[in-house]
Amino acid sequence: MPPAARLLAEWAARLRPDDIPVTVRENAALRVLDTLGCALAGAREDHVPALLALLERSGEGPCTVVGSALTSGPAPAALVNGAMAHGLDFDDTHADSICHASAVLVPTVLALAESEHLTGQAALTALVAGYETMIRIGMAAPGRFHARGWHATAACGPFGAAVTAGKCLGLAEDGLMAALGIAASMASGVMEFLEDGSWVKRLHPGWAAQSGIQAAILAKGGFTGPATGLDGRFGFLRAALGEAVDVGKRLDDLGHEWETVRSSFKLYPCCHLSHAYLDAITRLKRMGDLRAEEVEDIECLVPAGEAPIICEPVEAKLRPRTPYDAKFSLPFGIAAALARERVDIGVFSQESIGDANLLALTARVRYTIDPDSAFPRTFPGWVRVRLKDGRTLEAREESQRGGPDRPIAPDEVLAKFRDNAAQALPPLRVAALESGILGMESAVDLHSTIALCRGG
Amino acid sequence: MPPAARLLAEWAARLRPDDIPVTVRENAALRVLDTLGCALAGAREDHVPALLALLERSGEGPCTVVGSALTSGPAPAALVNGAMAHGLDFDDTHADSICHASAVLVPTVLALAESEHLTGQAALTALVAGYETMIRIGMAAPGRFHARGWHATAACGPFGAAVTAGKCLGLAEDGLMAALGIAASMASGVMEFLEDGSWVKRLHPGWAAQSGIQAAILAKGGFTGPATGLDGRFGFLRAALGEAVDVGKRLDDLGHEWETVRSSFKLYPCCHLSHAYLDAITRLKRMGDLRAEEVEDIECLVPAGEAPIICEPVEAKLRPRTPYDAKFSLPFGIAAALARERVDIGVFSQESIGDANLLALTARVRYTIDPDSAFPRTFPGWVRVRLKDGRTLEAREESQRGGPDRPIAPDEVLAKFRDNAAQALPPLRVAALESGILGMESAVDLHSTIALCRGG
Repeated sequence: MPPAARLLAEWAARLRPDDIPVTVRENAALRVLDTLGCALAGAREDHVPALLALLERSGEGPCTVVGSALTSGPAPAALVNGAMAHGLDFDDTHADSICHASAVLVPTVLALAESEHLTGQAALTALVAGYETMIRIGMAAPGRFHARGWHATAACGPFGAAVTAGKCLGLAEDGLMAALGIAASMASGVMEFLEDGSWVKRLHPGWAAQSGIQAAILAKGGFTGPATGLDGRFGFLRAALGEAVDVGKRLDDLGHEWETVRSSFKLYPCCHLSHAYLDAITRLKRMGDLRAEEVEDIECLVPAGEAPIICEPVEAKLRPRTPYDAKFSLPFGIAAALARERVDIGVFSQESIGDANLLALTARVRYTIDPDSAFPRTFPGWVRVRLKDGRTLEAREESQRGGPDRPIAPDEVLAKFRDNAAQALPPLRVAALESGILGMESAVDLHSTIALCRGG
Repeated sequence: MPPAARLLAEWAARLRPDDIPVTVRENAALRVLDTLGCALAGAREDHVPALLALLERSGEGPCTVVGSALTSGPAPAALVNGAMAHGLDFDDTHADSICHASAVLVPTVLALAESEHLTGQAALTALVAGYETMIRIGMAAPGRFHARGWHATAACGPFGAAVTAGKCLGLAEDGLMAALGIAASMASGVMEFLEDGSWVKRLHPGWAAQSGIQAAILAKGGFTGPATGLDGRFGFLRAALGEAVDVGKRLDDLGHEWETVRSSFKLYPCCHLSHAYLDAITRLKRMGDLRAEEVEDIECLVPAGEAPIICEPVEAKLRPRTPYDAKFSLPFGIAAALARERVDIGVFSQESIGDANLLALTARVRYTIDPDSAFPRTFPGWVRVRLKDGRTLEAREESQRGGPDRPIAPDEVLAKFRDNAAQALPPLRVAALESGILGMESAVDLHSTIALCRGG
C-alpha cells in the first residue's frame, strides 16, 4: 500500500473541474459564501484587533483581509481571515471528521486565487481537492483527535490547506506530496482553551491555512518532505494519536463519494455539538408547550465523546467565563434557546453571560451520558424537560438541521450570509459579493470579487 | 501547583540582566556567534532557494535574512534564518532535553532585536529566558518526544521562542503566559524525515521561531491563550505524549541553575548522537593504531533510544539517499571519520554519498544495543574496531567533546565561526560581526551588528 500522501497527491494532481459533479461545485461555492459571511461578521469580534496587529508586522502584499483596508501576503492574509471566519464558531462542520474544513480552506483558496489571479474554476477545483483531503484524514480517526486533546480542524487542516494551496500554485503530484510531507511537521492545535474560555481555538483554522500555504510555497521551491509524513513510523498520526491510523481505507472512494457536500451549515453561532439540542428545544417551544418560566429542570442525554467539550467542567459550563466560553456550554445554549427569541450572535456577549435570569435557567440544565449515541457520525440532541406542573416533555433529534441528514435549502444559507455580511459591508456590496461568489465558476479572474470583502 | 506557564511567565517577566551571571551572559553571546556562523555556512545549502522563494511572497520588512539581500518582517526572517542555522545540523544541542535551542532562539531574538532596536543587554536577557524555558520543558520529558516520533526541538521550540519574543516585545507576566498558551496550539514537528532523507527537520527550528514570534505578537495585541496550555487535561504535553508531564519539577531551580550554558557546541556538521563515536574513532586514529584500510569491521554499542535515529533502518543508513540523510547515519559518519582528514561540511555532499570507497567502509559498521547507557543525559560513544590482522581496538567516550562534561575553549568555537562565516562574508565583515556579537552587552542598538549578516 503506497503512503496516504502519495494516493492523495496522485488524485489531487489529476483532478480537473469536469471531474467534479456540478452539484458538488455549486455546493462548494455556497460554502465559500457562507464562510465569507462568517468572516465578515467575525471581523467585528473582540479577538480581531490582535490579528490586525499581527498583520501590521507582516509586510504588504496583494491579498485581501476581510473587513479591513490592510492587505498582505497570502500566508498572513489566510491566517487572519481564517481566524475571523472561525471567530464566531458559526462556520460549517463535517461531523464524521469533526472538522471545520471551510474556515481553513476558503481563506487558503481565496488568498492564492487573489495573488495568482486564478479563474473561478481553478479555485473551486483546488478547494474541493482540499476538502476531500482534510476531511478524509479526519475520518480515518473518528473522534480520536478530540479524545486525545487535539482539535481535529487544527490537526487535519494543514494537509487540506497544503493540497488546496498546492493546486492553486500549479504543483504536480510530487510537489503536492512534498507539501503534505512538510505539512506533517506543522500540524498542531489543542483543545485546552476549554479550561478558561480563552481564544486560541479561533486561531486554529487560520494557523492551519498559513501552514498549508507555506508548505506549498516551499514545495514549489523544491523543498522536500517525507512521503510517509502522515502515516509512517514517525509520522504525524502515530505521533499525535499514539497508534497507527489507516488513512488509505478512507481513500478508496476518492472522486466517487464527495465529502465536500457533507459538512453541516450552522444556524447558531456556537459549538456544533450543541445544535441538535437547541433544535430540540426550539421544536418544543414551537409546539407551544414550553415556556422558560415553567421549567423545573432539563436533562440532556449526551454522547460520552461530547461531554468533556460541552458539559465539563460543570461549574464553568454553568457560569461561562468569557463570551467565547459560552459558545462551548450546552447548558448556556439551552437556556438561551429557551429564553431568547433566536440563538444569534448577540446571545454570546459580555452582557448575556452576566444576565442573572439566563444564568438561573442555565443552572437548571444537567446531563447524563447517552451510551448508545452514533457520535461522531452524527451530532445528536436529546432533551427531557421537567415542568413545574409535573409534566415531562421530551424531544430527540438524530442530527442537527443544516447537515446532510437534515439539509436546509440554499435560501436559508443565503439569508444567513446576508445577515452576517451586513455587519461589515453596505447592501450593494453584499449583493455584488453574493452574485460574484455564486457565479464564480464563470470568473476568469477572482481578484475583483474577493476584493469586495475589503473594508475601511 | 500553578500551571507551568504561570511559573515560567512570572520568572521570565521579572528577569533582568543583572539576575544572570556574567559567565552565562558571555556563554549566551558565544552561542549567538556560533549559530550565526552555522546560518552563514548554511545559506549555501541546497534547501535555501526554496526558503528564499517563501520570503519573496512574504512582503518587505526591517529584518535581516542571513546571507541574503532580502529583508522581511520578524516572523518570516526568523523562519528562514532558523532553517539556515539548522540546515547543516552544525548548531548546538542540549543533551538532557535533546533540543537545538539556539537554532530556534537566536533567529527569534535577532529578528526582534533588529525590528525593535533593542540593546544587547535586553536581547541577551530575552534569549536566556527563552533558553531556560525551552530546555526545561524538554527536560521534563527526557527522550519521550523522540520516542513518540516528535522532534523535541520543534515541539519545545515554540514555547522558548514565545518567551524570548515576548521579552523582546516588552510583555509582562500575563502577556507571556498568553503567548505560551497560544504557542501550545502551534507546537509540532515529527521525525519522519528519517525515512527518506528529506529536509523538513531543517525547517523545524525556523518554524518554531515563527510560531513563538507570532504567538508573542498576538499576545501583545491582547489575544488570549489558556494558562494550562502546556500541562492541562487537553494541553500540548498530554496530547503529544499521551500522558501527563510534570514540568513544574524542572522549574524549582529556575534562576539558580542555568541550562543555557549546558548545550554542547558541535564540532562535526551531523547528528549530535554520532559525535562521541566520531570522537572515539578520531582518538584511535591519533594514537596511530588505526588506518581505514586495515579495518575488518566496527561494532558500535548504541543506546536503545538512539538506534531508531542513527542506526535504523540499516539499509538506508549504509547507503544514505541524500547528503542530508547521511548526517543521520552513524555508519557513514564513522566511515568518514576513518577515511577523511576531518568530518567537515564537504563530507555530507552528493559526491561523498556516491563515493564507493566510503560506502564500502560504511558497510563494515554495525551496531548492538548498549543496555546501560545514560542517554539522553549524555550522548555517549563506544566503538570496537576489529582489524584485519586480528587485533581489536576499543574506545569509549561518556560524552562528546563540546558539551558540559568535556568543554572546549571558546577559541575553538571562534575558529569554527570564522570557518563558517567565511563561506558567506568577506574577512573584514567576519571580524566586525565577531567583535560586535562578542561585545553585544554594550550595544545600545543591535541593529547595525545584525545587518552585517546580510549578503548580496
